[in-house]
Amino acid sequence: MPDAQLTARMADAIRFLSLDAIERATDGHPGAPLGCAEIATALFTRHLKCNPADPEWPDRDRFVLSNGHGSMLLYSVLHLAGYAGMPIEQIRAFRELGSHTHGHPEIAPEHGIEATTGPLGQGIANAVGMAVAEARLAAEFGSDLVDHHTYALVGDGCLQEGIAHEVISLAGHLQLGKLVFLWDDNRITDDGSIDLSISEDVGARFRAANWHVTECDGHDVDAVSAAIDRAKADPRPSLIACRTIIGRGLPRLEGQRGAHGGRVFDTDLAEARAARGWDHPAFTVPEEVGAAWRAGAGERNRPAYAAWESRRAALPEATRKEFERVSAARLPEGWREALRAVRDRLAGAGEARASIEVSAEIVGALADAIPELFSGAPDLEGPTKHKQAFAAFTAGDRSGRYLHYGIREHAMGSMMNGIAAHRGLVPVGATYLVFSDYMRPSLRMAALMRLPVITVYSHDSIGIGRNGPTHQPVEYLASLRAIPNMLVLRPADATETAECWELALANREGPTSLICSRQALPALGRPAGGENRCARGAYVVAEADGERRVTLIGTGSEVALALAARETLQAQGVPTAVVSMPSWELFAEQDAAYRDRTIPRGTVRVAVEAALRFGWDRWIGEDGGFVGMTGFGASGPADELFRHFGITAEAVVEAARARLPI
Amino acid sequence: MPDAQLTARMADAIRFLSLDAIERATDGHPGAPLGCAEIATALFTRHLKCNPADPEWPDRDRFVLSNGHGSMLLYSVLHLAGYAGMPIEQIRAFRELGSHTHGHPEIAPEHGIEATTGPLGQGIANAVGMAVAEARLAAEFGSDLVDHHTYALVGDGCLQEGIAHEVISLAGHLQLGKLVFLWDDNRITDDGSIDLSISEDVGARFRAANWHVTECDGHDVDAVSAAIDRAKADPRPSLIACRTIIGRGLPRLEGQRGAHGGRVFDTDLAEARAARGWDHPAFTVPEEVGAAWRAGAGERNRPAYAAWESRRAALPEATRKEFERVSAARLPEGWREALRAVRDRLAGAGEARASIEVSAEIVGALADAIPELFSGAPDLEGPTKHKQAFAAFTAGDRSGRYLHYGIREHAMGSMMNGIAAHRGLVPVGATYLVFSDYMRPSLRMAALMRLPVITVYSHDSIGIGRNGPTHQPVEYLASLRAIPNMLVLRPADATETAECWELALANREGPTSLICSRQALPALGRPAGGENRCARGAYVVAEADGERRVTLIGTGSEVALALAARETLQAQGVPTAVVSMPSWELFAEQDAAYRDRTIPRGTVRVAVEAALRFGWDRWIGEDGGFVGMTGFGASGPADELFRHFGITAEAVVEAARARLPI
Repeated sequence: MPDAQLTARMADAIRFLSLDAIERATDGHPGAPLGCAEIATALFTRHLKCNPADPEWPDRDRFVLSNGHGSMLLYSVLHLAGYAGMPIEQIRAFRELGSHTHGHPEIAPEHGIEATTGPLGQGIANAVGMAVAEARLAAEFGSDLVDHHTYALVGDGCLQEGIAHEVISLAGHLQLGKLVFLWDDNRITDDGSIDLSISEDVGARFRAANWHVTECDGHDVDAVSAAIDRAKADPRPSLIACRTIIGRGLPRLEGQRGAHGGRVFDTDLAEARAARGWDHPAFTVPEEVGAAWRAGAGERNRPAYAAWESRRAALPEATRKEFERVSAARLPEGWREALRAVRDRLAGAGEARASIEVSAEIVGALADAIPELFSGAPDLEGPTKHKQAFAAFTAGDRSGRYLHYGIREHAMGSMMNGIAAHRGLVPVGATYLVFSDYMRPSLRMAALMRLPVITVYSHDSIGIGRNGPTHQPVEYLASLRAIPNMLVLRPADATETAECWELALANREGPTSLICSRQALPALGRPAGGENRCARGAYVVAEADGERRVTLIGTGSEVALALAARETLQAQGVPTAVVSMPSWELFAEQDAAYRDRTIPRGTVRVAVEAALRFGWDRWIGEDGGFVGMTGFGASGPADELFRHFGITAEAVVEAARARLPI
Repeated sequence: MPDAQLTARMADAIRFLSLDAIERATDGHPGAPLGCAEIATALFTRHLKCNPADPEWPDRDRFVLSNGHGSMLLYSVLHLAGYAGMPIEQIRAFRELGSHTHGHPEIAPEHGIEATTGPLGQGIANAVGMAVAEARLAAEFGSDLVDHHTYALVGDGCLQEGIAHEVISLAGHLQLGKLVFLWDDNRITDDGSIDLSISEDVGARFRAANWHVTECDGHDVDAVSAAIDRAKADPRPSLIACRTIIGRGLPRLEGQRGAHGGRVFDTDLAEARAARGWDHPAFTVPEEVGAAWRAGAGERNRPAYAAWESRRAALPEATRKEFERVSAARLPEGWREALRAVRDRLAGAGEARASIEVSAEIVGALADAIPELFSGAPDLEGPTKHKQAFAAFTAGDRSGRYLHYGIREHAMGSMMNGIAAHRGLVPVGATYLVFSDYMRPSLRMAALMRLPVITVYSHDSIGIGRNGPTHQPVEYLASLRAIPNMLVLRPADATETAECWELALANREGPTSLICSRQALPALGRPAGGENRCARGAYVVAEADGERRVTLIGTGSEVALALAARETLQAQGVPTAVVSMPSWELFAEQDAAYRDRTIPRGTVRVAVEAALRFGWDRWIGEDGGFVGMTGFGASGPADELFRHFGITAEAVVEAARARLPI
């Protein structure tokens, strides 16, 4: 172990790499990299199980920088530890377009960055998800293959956010003993002293949730290291309160509010160098310090890595391959066939079913075919039904594959992100569509990180009836469709629900929102077998009888209305086709010829969806007809509501006829 | 005070009104009305300061049913208390279209309903906002006029939601001593026993946040009443843990998970009547019980009401009128003139300014003209600057008009709703646009309740530069515009910022989102004086020189790009107009002639906005040009980002030229 002086210089190496980079970039957040330099040194050089030469080692400890604005802390540490993706050129290019040393960390496990962080509270929730994944995978594959800790560095901001308490409460309940939060307890936020906004006993709050709480001097590497030892020894999740001084080492800003995100000037660098006795040029780490870092973060872990490799090599080939498969986030052979079989059975039955029920049935049917499916809901097991074949994942039994998230939607969203980022499980969460707003910050992060997270939403419209406008989504389809990289699917019947599930599982490049009804949806009557027609986003479910003059476009529960309207229009001599459009995103990816063939601009276009028109002009044109909602819903029986708001087959017919040339 | 037997029957009156209504409606949530009948009886007949004959008495205690699914509890109580708006016909019409006994309570202070609740956690946060309003108004007008408590009935669900901890922490910090949470501690959620998802010591959690915590038997009216006495006597906010049995009195479901939202059948009614010895017909309250209720909720309060009226009448007329004005949520005379003066000064200066700075300056300038302005931000005082002239509202000083919400956006959103619903203050909150997602559930509630809440968002695009995609909104304009009743304003320069502030303040029928830039925006060059041109949503800021062939439409920071593009197009001989479009909603309200004159369909239409196209087809048509983002942003200098993503005057020119007939 390096002596005290060398250890101090190891921490200072973080400080000066960070300061040089922030000064060069002309902006950044110096407070955390300076204030947490000793914490990071203790963690990375004495505890974190990692291999800079194999950053994606599946059994590595996970580290999440939840206070993502302190990104230079992470980049400095990864550089010092010897990650090939983090050479000094990347440090110099901090916050430049084209670098991967972004303003806030962006997920890149190949470079040692486990999650995109910045929006406060998300990182710690990701970490809790990662700890769940670890516990579940350890139960599946054994501790020879899976036995690692999850650490998160967390600031006051992360802890004040509501999501923090959701995951603190749940992590304590689940007794995720390999989870450690390192709290940068500096008593300063952007506004100034924490006395402006909080007087809570943070430790007591964690203890109330059954956490182990310990504290240390955050500027004493030995003390931090000893606290981490205590944390690892305790069977509970641990909070380590590290008393620190924000901006430590930068005389002008040290201990000040301005250290959080203040500009650093070259005069500051000179003062800091003088104060810390650091007489090395910018972006330069003395060899002795660099060697100590590489020894601590790299060589220290070689025996553990080699031992793990030996254990893995000794496994039966099937186990090894299965572990490799889930670690690479590859779905197993045969899942599509299993799903198609369900679809064809559903198509054959031709029953009117609530799509949330069908979705639940599918998840249950895939339980064996996709052993890494990991389901859950925020206290809506009954109405969303996605527990089915699964036992609960609990403090006492890690073999379960269903998580009772409690009434904590935001936790679910961000924990699913952490589960997906960890790899090894396919997280599926089910809730009501209106509650997607509660998890919206995490949905955005899933999209930004391009994580394969599947959320199933039930109760998707005024079709829920009497619970009223608080629980009736009208703007949610638009607001979910507006998120880049988000695949939104709204199936119209049981067959489409199975097809949409196939698309959701196949989507490995981003999150999926599967929008389901509470009420039963009549079968469209498509025969069993054949292609996945939902894959093109929209398709003709009933062609016009005669040369098409009208195209009716529906989604979900409203496709049935479009079909009924078509009957009337055809009877009136107006050749009318009906298009089911489960996904705007997939339809937008089709070639122009397919798009124009499916929804020809030369026809009268009318869309029907029990939601707002917002965004629909893209598909129906500004003169197109739209039958849907114009504002919030109301409390009353569902069938009355559809009539009250004028979402009927008759209204669709009228909207079409009004647009036909006389 | 009624004897024990009569008291028990008063609680049972709630039970049977609720059960009869839920059975008749064929759905509803019996668990809470049955489980909280004694709590409500204690509160309403012994403590709550209210006047059923004057429901909007400004100094009434506020009661929020945070567990809004238990709506029949509230309706039953209001009926029993004698609120004219809640006759037995309304109870019978529970959950029918056209009644005001909706599935979840919807704000109607004229009927005794203080807030729309249902999405969990919102109600308690509203209550905390109401308690802030009370404290601030008491400091302004004195305790003769303002001296009331705020009570919230809260379930496990509300407490598990993240927003709960945000407001628990902040209410403890602010020492809102007149705030009382009555916790329906029944150990059951929708999934079943709370053991499935929580093992937290809830009392310890509140104590860690400096609350007074007490407990009682929730089925003993005397015990609940005594606990409320203890709560009122304590200077801290209070949590009363009321031990209850969910569905108490309904033998089949009592104490069961199914009581939460399970269907109630006529056989259940018979069993319940037998079990409780309640032999009265459906929807019938025996006269003695009814009289006791009206005495407890109504007559008990007459002396207090009369005394308050006397004190009010004795006030100087100016004070009385001012109090009446703010209680009616009417803005003072002269505010428009004050604001126009600021606008004209800004127009005269013609400086390039960041619109967030201008917004802050305006709020500061209006501090005297609108004494009820109440500002705040979630730990972004520095970058949003909306503290200006205000002192902080703190535990020790209630005269301040700026709330340091801490890093608690969701709390801010819902507390502002509570402040607005309370009346007396005009809440203004400022944060970054990306963090609006954190408060989205409360934004939706503001829109649903049509509350005049103003949120100012800074850092509105990739214009923030190096902080990267986590902090760069691209989908937010679309997702805010998608919320019904939400006025979204994105001003293009200082003058427009002042005009948009006038529109925001004038908007008393719903919330306003004022979208501001961090970077400086050049002045459009409009002269001082004249109409508020932003009031029409969009207007021609530069007419074409010659017969218009191209209409360029910009918002916010991109109007300058449109103006630059116009220069080029005009130089190339293409008559081009530029339209600034600060608000879609206001433009949509204009008559067709104005709309077509402003953005003529016969011209080539190109919109430019540093955000997604989503929704824009409505204004530019499906063939219109759009220059903006197509996905998430990136980390780099702002000017490089605009070039990188092709949001330039040149791109606008190209988009127009590509659409011109050859």
